[in-house]
Parts: sequence; C-alpha cells; structure tokens
Amino acid sequence: MEKKQVVIVGGGFGGINAARELSDVKGVHVTLIDKRNHHLFQPLLYQVAMAALSPAEIAAPIRSVVRHSGNVDVLLGTVTGVDLNARKVKADFGEVSYDYLIMACGSTHSYFGHDEWEENAPGLKSLEEALEIRRRVLTAFELAEREHDPVVQEELLTFVIVGAGPTGVELAGALSEISHYTMGHDFRNIDPRRTRVYLIEGGPRVLPPFDPRLSEYAQKALEKLDVIVKTNSIVTKVHEHGVVIGNEEIRARTVLWAAGVQPAEINKTLGVATDRGGRVIVERDCSLSAHPEVFVLGDQAAFEAGAGKYLPGVATVAIQQGRYVASLIRQELKGKERKPFQYWDKGSMATIGRALAVAQTRRIRMKGFFAWIGWLLVHIYYLIGFENRMVVLFQWAYNYLTMGRGARIITNRDWHSHTKKNS
Amino acid sequence: MEKKQVVIVGGGFGGINAARELSDVKGVHVTLIDKRNHHLFQPLLYQVAMAALSPAEIAAPIRSVVRHSGNVDVLLGTVTGVDLNARKVKADFGEVSYDYLIMACGSTHSYFGHDEWEENAPGLKSLEEALEIRRRVLTAFELAEREHDPVVQEELLTFVIVGAGPTGVELAGALSEISHYTMGHDFRNIDPRRTRVYLIEGGPRVLPPFDPRLSEYAQKALEKLDVIVKTNSIVTKVHEHGVVIGNEEIRARTVLWAAGVQPAEINKTLGVATDRGGRVIVERDCSLSAHPEVFVLGDQAAFEAGAGKYLPGVATVAIQQGRYVASLIRQELKGKERKPFQYWDKGSMATIGRALAVAQTRRIRMKGFFAWIGWLLVHIYYLIGFENRMVVLFQWAYNYLTMGRGARIITNRDWHSHTKKNS
Repeated sequence: MEKKQVVIVGGGFGGINAARELSDVKGVHVTLIDKRNHHLFQPLLYQVAMAALSPAEIAAPIRSVVRHSGNVDVLLGTVTGVDLNARKVKADFGEVSYDYLIMACGSTHSYFGHDEWEENAPGLKSLEEALEIRRRVLTAFELAEREHDPVVQEELLTFVIVGAGPTGVELAGALSEISHYTMGHDFRNIDPRRTRVYLIEGGPRVLPPFDPRLSEYAQKALEKLDVIVKTNSIVTKVHEHGVVIGNEEIRARTVLWAAGVQPAEINKTLGVATDRGGRVIVERDCSLSAHPEVFVLGDQAAFEAGAGKYLPGVATVAIQQGRYVASLIRQELKGKERKPFQYWDKGSMATIGRALAVAQTRRIRMKGFFAWIGWLLVHIYYLIGFENRMVVLFQWAYNYLTMGRGARIITNRDWHSHTKKNS
Repeated sequence: MEKKQVVIVGGGFGGINAARELSDVKGVHVTLIDKRNHHLFQPLLYQVAMAALSPAEIAAPIRSVVRHSGNVDVLLGTVTGVDLNARKVKADFGEVSYDYLIMACGSTHSYFGHDEWEENAPGLKSLEEALEIRRRVLTAFELAEREHDPVVQEELLTFVIVGAGPTGVELAGALSEISHYTMGHDFRNIDPRRTRVYLIEGGPRVLPPFDPRLSEYAQKALEKLDVIVKTNSIVTKVHEHGVVIGNEEIRARTVLWAAGVQPAEINKTLGVATDRGGRVIVERDCSLSAHPEVFVLGDQAAFEAGAGKYLPGVATVAIQQGRYVASLIRQELKGKERKPFQYWDKGSMATIGRALAVAQTRRIRMKGFFAWIGWLLVHIYYLIGFENRMVVLFQWAYNYLTMGRGARIITNRDWHSHTKKNS
C-alpha cells in the first residue's frame, strides 16, 4: 500500500504537535515545511525581547524535535500557495503533493490598516523581532547616556507599549523592572529610574479576556511598578517621535506594538471563506467544508466554539488541534468516523513582573505570588521537550536572585538605526 | 585638584583590563568608548559560529563589567579620529578631551587586497559575524536537504576554511564533528556525513606558531576527523561557488576566512608611524614616541619584543598591556618613572575537536585529551567575570554528553541569502 502523504505547513505549536502525533504511524509519510529552522516557544518570547533569555533557550531546531520520527521529513522553505483541487502545496523550492494537508501558519501583527506604523512600532512574533525590540530598548538607554539635551533624553527614556493583552502587560512590567533595578547602577549621566513606561489600551481595562477583578489587580500592580496605564485610549498615529492618542501626544523614541494580530498572509491566496479578521472558517473537525482533507489550525483559523463564540488564538488551542487532527487522520486510515474537536480550556495566565502574575481557569482566580509560581510551573512543564529547559531555569534563578539580565547583548551592525532591516 | 581624564577606546581585552585597573583610582576619571555594548570573550567566538554557545554566553555588557567602578563612564559610539595635538578624541557623538589616551581597537580581517572576497568568505571577529557563519553553515545543510541535483548538493555540503591558525583549525574540527555527529540523524535526503571540510593553509603546516611536532599531530587529528588539509596552498580567488588554488578549483557554497588580520581602520587616520601590516609602532612603554600620553595596545600596535620580533596578536598580550598601562598611569600620577612593559608568555593552545587539543608553553608541549582538559580549565578560568560562565559549563557538559549543539537556531530574515546585511 502506498503511504498517505501528509503535508504540514508551519512548525509552531499546531504543526509540531501534529507531526509528533503522526510519528512512526504506519502508512503515513509526513512533510513538515517551515520558513524558519526552529520551533519557537512563543509564550516566553517577551523574555528574549527583555534580555532575560537568549534565542536558543526558547527555540529548538524543528529537525531535532522530530529527529526520532523516521517518517517525518522537514523542509526549510516558504509556502506561497495551495492548489486545493490538485492537492498540491506550492513552495519556493517546488511543489509537494498531499493526501492530507494541515495548515498551521499562525498569525502576524495587525496595524489595523496602518502597516506604515510597523517601522516605528515593531511587534513581537519572531526571534528576529524580539532581538530587534531588545536592540531598540537597550540602545535607547545608551543614546540617552551620551545625550546632553534633556528633552531628547526624556524622549529616549520614554517607552510606549500599545495593547494591554498578556504580551503588552508582560512587556510593560519587564521594561519597568529593567529600568528600575537592572540598569540602576550601570549609567552615570542618566538615572534609568526616570524611565517612563506607558501602556496604552483601546478597551476599558487591561487584560481584556480575564476576569475584571484580575484586570483591576493587574493594573494596580503595574502602577506600583510605575507603569502609566491608559485605558480607553485609541492610538491614532505612530511616528518616529512617539504616538498620538486623540489630542494627546506622547513623545517616545521606542514604541512597541502588542495591539492586534491577523492571520498569515497565505489565507488571502486560498480562495476559501474567511471571517472578518481574515481567519479561515473551519468545520467542527478543523477542516474546510469543501475539502475535508485540508485542516487549518490555531490562530490561522476561525473555529466556532458555540453561538458566535470563537476559540482564542492561544497556544493550548493550537496544541490540542494539532494532536486532534493527527489522531483523526490516524483513525480515518483505520476506517473510523470523524469526531468533532473538543477544546479543553486550561485557563489563561499572564505575568506582571518579578513574582507577580494573574491566572484563571473556569473555576479558579489567582493573583500575586502564587499565580506567578503557577505560571512558572506551567511554563517549565511545557518547555519539556526543549533540551535547554535547564538552562532557562538556571537563567531565571540567576535573574531572580540578582535582578540581573543575562542577555543584554546588542548584536547588530547598525545598532543605532531603527530600520527594519536590522543586522 | 582636577581629575586626570583617561579615555579608553575599545572594550576588548586591552581596554577592559585597563579600565578595571583604573577603577576607583583617586584623581582619575575614565571614559571608555566602544561601538558595541558588550565585551566579547573572543577565544570562544568559534563556538557561537558552530552553534555550541549563544552570543550572551560569551559576551557581557561593558557597563556591567565596570558597574562598580564609579569613576568609569561607558559611552556607546564610534571613534572616527584623534587630534593628537589638541588631545581630543573625535566620535560620532562629539569630542572628548583626554590627558591620557589608551587605544585598544583590535584588528579586523585582511583579505590581502581582495576585500571583495569578504562577501563570499566571511571572517570571525564579532558576534554578528559568528551568527552569520552559523547561518550559512546551517542553511547549507537545509538547502542540501531539499536539493535534487547531486552536483549542487555536493557543492552545498562542501565547506572551505582558509587559514590554518588556531581559529581555522578550531572551525574545521568543529564543522567536521557537527556534520558527523550532531546532524547525523536530522536529515532524510542527505547524509551529512558526506560533508567535506577543506582546511587551506598558505604555509607549510597547520598552526604555524606552534611547535612543528604539535602541528603534525594537529594535522593528523584533523585528518582522522575527515578534514582535508591542504598546506602550501595559496587561495588566488574566492567566488560564490568556491575557491581557486592555482590550477585547482574547489566547489563549495560556504567559505570561511581565517587567514589574516589587519589592525583597525583608525590607524590610517592617526598620522603616526606604522609597520608594514599597518600596526602602530609603539615604544617600550606602549606609548607613541612623540606622544607619551597616548598608548596603543594589543593587535592594534606593533610592540618589538626583541631584535625584529614582535608580540603576537593574542588575548594575553592585550590583557597584560591593558593592566600595565593603567598601572603606569597610576604610578606616574604619584611622580614615579615609567618602567618598560614585560610580556609574560603564558603559552598558546588550540582545540581540534571534542576532547582533543594542543598546547605549549616555553617548556611544555601537550597534545590530546590532557591538552584539552588544560584548554577547558584555562578558558573557564578566564571566563571568570562573566556572569554566564556556569551556563557555558552547563552547555558544554550537555554538548559533550549528547554530541548535541544547543544553539542551532537561524535567526535571520533572509535566511537563504548570503548577503552581508544579515539580521
């Protein structure tokens, strides 16, 4: 019997878990295509941006992850489109035929129609972007140190984070801690504690998906860290000297974008139904209605989980859908019927700073130190499979004890230019 | 009494050690200027290039290193020239006056008049270059995996290292080990063990500054690792498909340059005497003959250590000169006379591969496992002062035990282009 060809596009949480679940399944050959060579543990990406961890500590080569899966091929390449009728994936290195296609391409930033803002307000989705954010933040302090004009110095020491979801909150808390503690003794001409960190949110409260009491707690905790939280504030302009919110202008050389996401570009080329946000609308088994052999996972897809309610774009959804689809294919090859995908909501958490977090499940609300311990345990647990988890633990312990940051290294040729093509 | 202004240009081994030695010296204020924010432990740079270590593990922010030296200012900036008569350093952020100037700007690659080769044969001097070499090496395997043409595949799996000094030998040994062991199980369509690694040396033997018996041992050890060593071979051309040596052409997509160095560009602007290689000729106290207040250290300078014999461009020279000059300034401020610099040759070492090295001092010659243990101990000792030395130890232990490499992460936007503007 000829092997069924399963093509997986994307080595994120969805793709990697699908590949692992199909590992050594008889009668199945898997080709996993990704434009990068590594699987990224995205929930800790902000720690790379904030110079607490190194890229290799939260990333693993996709090849290594599936090294022992003899039936899984990994190809580095960019997928440019899919011929749904001919069942072929088109990539920069050629075409690959499939019997089953699993798309798990993730999402990218949304600037709500203002893509020109990206240059002055990078987002946080990839290691490159994390390093770029790190470079901008560290360089701002360096430039402030050698600046004589107090107005320019103030602009350099003002940081604006747009969007107060978990990523925005984590960035704001970490940035404030760096300024207050880590950088405290390192500068002579500036007082890094004079740094101002703004967290701008369009909605009425920080951490919108959380329980309002946890949002309130998080806001107060951030304010204790001297973060200036502005809710109900829509950014109407971003330029190289700051942001505009209605009539107000905040002068800042460093603006970070954590406000919105949109699904991967490839969705526009598929010619299938999408929701308003551009996500592919999928059936209850994660497949396309006209193509049951094609599955779309994670935040690339809109999965309706109840009357008008869609699953959020979080890691647990992608992980569970990846495993589910792989298992579905395995069962289908044995002649069994498809069962719909059931999402098991494990809750959500966000760290605010050193030893502070909020967490909630369907029943439990936690905040403060114990929520942070919970956050720590969950992330360490999920890092299993990453060879470097012990290094991460070591770094964390070191950072925690010393208030230091082990990775304050700017690696860029043009360290003082805010260009997108950083080197 | 007004404080004496000491300006140090360069935060390498020479500059950092001078700054540390001047730490908290009364009557002295130090300004250390570097174009990068980090001090780099260069002897381990090849391990970053070979994906064994992460950048932050062998680099420390200069600010952190001198954090507790209240009289030392650190400025990130590029020095463009020196006005020796007005005693001013010109930098991109303005001018800085000095009473004493310590220049320790290091060296860069020399392509012997063929700067156009750099694009196809990057050298290894900075973290950026190490990451670029890592990217090229890892990407070559990735491209070979998806290549159908066996001729192109062979070209992708052929690596040429030009120059068989310690860096070239270390790169060749590591590259061969990666191909044979680390990548062994990761690819399906290629056999990474088919990789060919060439080590090209213009002189008659590898490791020219070492005892000929150690050179012979090193060459045999490399050949056991399947490295093809070619001595007495002058590269006459480098292009994007390989190198030319006289009548012979070696087709290779990845060429690394470890053949020659030249002092920092700034030497050309100083208007002082240099040797044929462009190094500033200094007196026996490391100063300029016409400017006893200006010192030039390390491989930026030509220090005559005996009839026509010059000190080599190694870390120990820069470290000792940095300490010496700082101590000289301290003594001079107390009215004492200058004593000439005395170099204490601690010997040299080079690793060939996992658990193999050569080492020599004036009296002792070592090779094999015990030389490697010595290499390990010396490098761990010198890493003291780097907060991350425990992480390095951990990574090494892990890599040693598993034959793995913890840092096989390509972080580049344009991962498949061999452009210099990597990110």
